Amino acid sequence: MKYEDFVRLNYLPDGDLICEYYLETKENFKKAAGAVAAESSIGTWDPNLTTMKLGIEKLAAKVFEIKGNKIKIAYPLELFEIDNVSQIFSSVAGNVFGMSIIENLRLLDIEIPEEMLKSYKGPKFGISGVRSFLKIEDRPLIGTIVKPKLGLTPKEQSDVAYKTWIGGVDLVKDDENLTSMSFNRFEERVTRVLELKDRAEEETGEKKGYMPNITAPYKEMEKRANIVTDLGGKYIMIDILTLGWSSLQEISKNTKLAIHGHRAMHGAFTRNSKHGIRMIVIAKFARLMGVDQLHTGGVVGKMEGEKDEIIKINSALKSGIMKKTFPVASGGLYPGCVEKLIKIIGKDTVIQAGGGIHAHPMGSEKGAMAMRQAVEGAMEGYSLKEYAKEHEELKTAIDRWGVVE
Amino acid sequence: MKYEDFVRLNYLPDGDLICEYYLETKENFKKAAGAVAAESSIGTWDPNLTTMKLGIEKLAAKVFEIKGNKIKIAYPLELFEIDNVSQIFSSVAGNVFGMSIIENLRLLDIEIPEEMLKSYKGPKFGISGVRSFLKIEDRPLIGTIVKPKLGLTPKEQSDVAYKTWIGGVDLVKDDENLTSMSFNRFEERVTRVLELKDRAEEETGEKKGYMPNITAPYKEMEKRANIVTDLGGKYIMIDILTLGWSSLQEISKNTKLAIHGHRAMHGAFTRNSKHGIRMIVIAKFARLMGVDQLHTGGVVGKMEGEKDEIIKINSALKSGIMKKTFPVASGGLYPGCVEKLIKIIGKDTVIQAGGGIHAHPMGSEKGAMAMRQAVEGAMEGYSLKEYAKEHEELKTAIDRWGVVE
Repeated sequence: MKYEDFVRLNYLPDGDLICEYYLETKENFKKAAGAVAAESSIGTWDPNLTTMKLGIEKLAAKVFEIKGNKIKIAYPLELFEIDNVSQIFSSVAGNVFGMSIIENLRLLDIEIPEEMLKSYKGPKFGISGVRSFLKIEDRPLIGTIVKPKLGLTPKEQSDVAYKTWIGGVDLVKDDENLTSMSFNRFEERVTRVLELKDRAEEETGEKKGYMPNITAPYKEMEKRANIVTDLGGKYIMIDILTLGWSSLQEISKNTKLAIHGHRAMHGAFTRNSKHGIRMIVIAKFARLMGVDQLHTGGVVGKMEGEKDEIIKINSALKSGIMKKTFPVASGGLYPGCVEKLIKIIGKDTVIQAGGGIHAHPMGSEKGAMAMRQAVEGAMEGYSLKEYAKEHEELKTAIDRWGVVE
Repeated sequence: MKYEDFVRLNYLPDGDLICEYYLETKENFKKAAGAVAAESSIGTWDPNLTTMKLGIEKLAAKVFEIKGNKIKIAYPLELFEIDNVSQIFSSVAGNVFGMSIIENLRLLDIEIPEEMLKSYKGPKFGISGVRSFLKIEDRPLIGTIVKPKLGLTPKEQSDVAYKTWIGGVDLVKDDENLTSMSFNRFEERVTRVLELKDRAEEETGEKKGYMPNITAPYKEMEKRANIVTDLGGKYIMIDILTLGWSSLQEISKNTKLAIHGHRAMHGAFTRNSKHGIRMIVIAKFARLMGVDQLHTGGVVGKMEGEKDEIIKINSALKSGIMKKTFPVASGGLYPGCVEKLIKIIGKDTVIQAGGGIHAHPMGSEKGAMAMRQAVEGAMEGYSLKEYAKEHEELKTAIDRWGVVE
C-alpha cells in the first residue's frame, strides 16, 4: 500500500479509535496524511512489502477527513492491545512525530470508542467519591502545596500542613519534586503529616486530605502506597508523566487510595500549538487509568494555559458514564483569582495555591483563611472586594496580590 | 528569594547536576532564567515565603552561566532522590516548560556528576557484552523490524524472522506498536520466533537475537520478561518513553535480559529546536537505567534526525567508564544507506532496516542478504556500487532504492 492508499475520504468510522491531528508538510498533503496513518498502523515507507497479505489491509488506519490542516484518522481496534495505554501511545503518538515527511504534527484530540472504554475502570472515587469522603458538596475544594517546594524537614512540613488545615484548607499535597529525600524521608513525612491531619480534623470538625507524592520506580512506589494505606491515608499523588503510563496503570490496579495526578513535564510537548500532544488527550487517558484528580491548568497564574483549552479539558473529565475526574486548578494562584476562576470553570474543581497561601504576609494559616474566605465569599455571591471588607485575611491577600477581574 | 536571586554568575559548580537550557522570554532575561532555577528547585512566584528558613537557601539551584539564550543551572544533589529518574525529571524537566514567564525553553544537555552516576548500574551487557554473545567483533550489527508492523500471525512473523536470519540479519525485533494483540499473542509469538531462531543459528552457524516488545503495565511486563527468560531468549524490547521511567527502572532491576530501547514518541518533545527536551538527555538517562541498545536516529531515512546531533548522542552513549550503550540507527534505512552511515557513525552501531529489507523486490531473505552484503562490502572498503557488481541481491536493492552519497 502506498501512503496515499491510507486516505479514504468516503470511509465511515464504526467503532474505531479516532484521532484528530494538525499536520503541516512541505510535500503533498494527502501523501503526508497517509504517511501518518501508515506509520501508526500497518504501513512503512516502501509500499512493496512482499509479506503483505490481503487479510492485513483491513487493519489499515484510514484518513477519513481532511479540513485545512486538520485530519481525522480512524484506527480499527484490532490494532491495539486495548487495555495497554503505552501500546496505544506507541501507535498513535509514537514514531509519527519524528517522520521527515512532516514539518509539524499535533495530536489534537482522541475519541475513544465504547469497547475500549469498557476495558478501563476509571477513577475509584471521582468527584462524587471525593466530595463524599470530605463531606463537601457545594463548593470547590481548596488545596495547598506545601512551600518551599523542597528543604523542609518532616516536622516542618507537617507543621505547615497543620496550619493550613486549621486555616481552612481541605487538601494538602507534596510538591511534584518532593519524594523521599535525605532531608525529608517519605515514611517519616507521611507519618507526621497524617498525625497532624487527624488533629486538624478533630479541631476543625472537618475532613481533611493529604496527598503524599509516591513517584518512584514501580515497586518502591507500590511500597510507598502501602505505607500510606497502613498509616490510614486516603490519597496518593503521582507525577503521571515523568513516571509513565506503565506504572500509573499498574499502581491504579493495586491500590484502593484516591489518585491525585500531577502533570509535570506536559509543557515539553503540549505547549507548541502546532506540534506534540494536546493536554486533552493526556487527560482522557489519565481518567481511564483511574486518576481521581488531575491538574489541568490554572487559567490565571504562573503556568501557561488557555482558558478555552482548560474548559474543554475539564468538560472531557466529566462527560460520559465513567466516574468524573476532579480537575485541579494550580500554578501561581492566590485568593484574588478565585472569583474569576469559579466563574470560568465552575465549582467542581480543586483550587490549589502554594505561594498564594504560604507567602501571605500574615503566614500560612492566615493565608489559608484568606483562600477559604475567597471561596466562600464567591459561592455566596459576594464580590471579593466586598467580602474582604469584613475579612481581614482576605483583605491582606488582596492588598498584596490584587484581584483578577 | 526573588527569581533574580537564583542567578549567581560567580558560582562555581562542585559536584552539582548541571543542566543547560535554551531560553526565550518576553520579560527580563535574568528574571526568567532565575524563574527556571527557582521553579525547578526551591522557589515559587512570590519571594515572601514566611516558612523559608535560612537553611533552605543552600538548596537553591543557581544559574551560573548565561551565554546569549543559553543558560546553565547547577542543582545541588540534595534536591534529588538520587536513584529516582522520575523525580529528577519532575525537577529539571517538569513545570518549567509550562511557566508563563517563558516563551520557549529547551533542556539541551545534562551533566551528571560522579555521585549520581554511581547510583546506577547502567547496561548489563552494553556494546562489549552484546558483541560477545553474538560473536561479532568487527562490524555493525544488522537488525530488522518484522514488517508489516501489525497484522501477521505468530507463525507468519516467525517465518519472516527466520528468512531474514538465514539471509544474514543478526537481530530481529518486533515493531514498537506490536505487543500482545488478538491476531498475535505475545507468548505464542515468542515461542515460535525463538524456535526458529534456534534453527537459524544451527543452519547458519551464527548467533542470532530476537527482541520481543514487552511494553505493558508493569506487572504484565515483568511477566512477559519472565516468559522470554523461560523460553531461552536473551533480549527484551521496550518503548521506553510511552512506557515511562518508573517501569523502565524497575524492569531493569528485575531482569537478566539485554534491553533494546525504542524511543517512540520522542519527536513530540525533541523536534522543536527551541522547546522541549533534547534526545541526548533521554539517551544519557536511558543508559544509566540499563538500556543496552537505544534508537538514536537513522541519519538518513524516514525519521527526522540531524547528523551532528546523532553523532553527539552516540558519543555520549559510549563515554565514561559505565558499560556502553549500543546506538541503533533505524527508520527508513536500506542497503544504499549503509556505506554513508558507517562513515558517519562508525561500526559500533546496530543498523536496522524494516521496509529496506522486507520490501526488497526478491523478498525478505534476499533483502536481508543485500543488507549483509552492504555492511560487509563497506567494512572491506568497497564502494557499494562496486560491491554490487558481484552481489545480485545488493544490486537489486540499489536498483530499487539507490545509494546515498
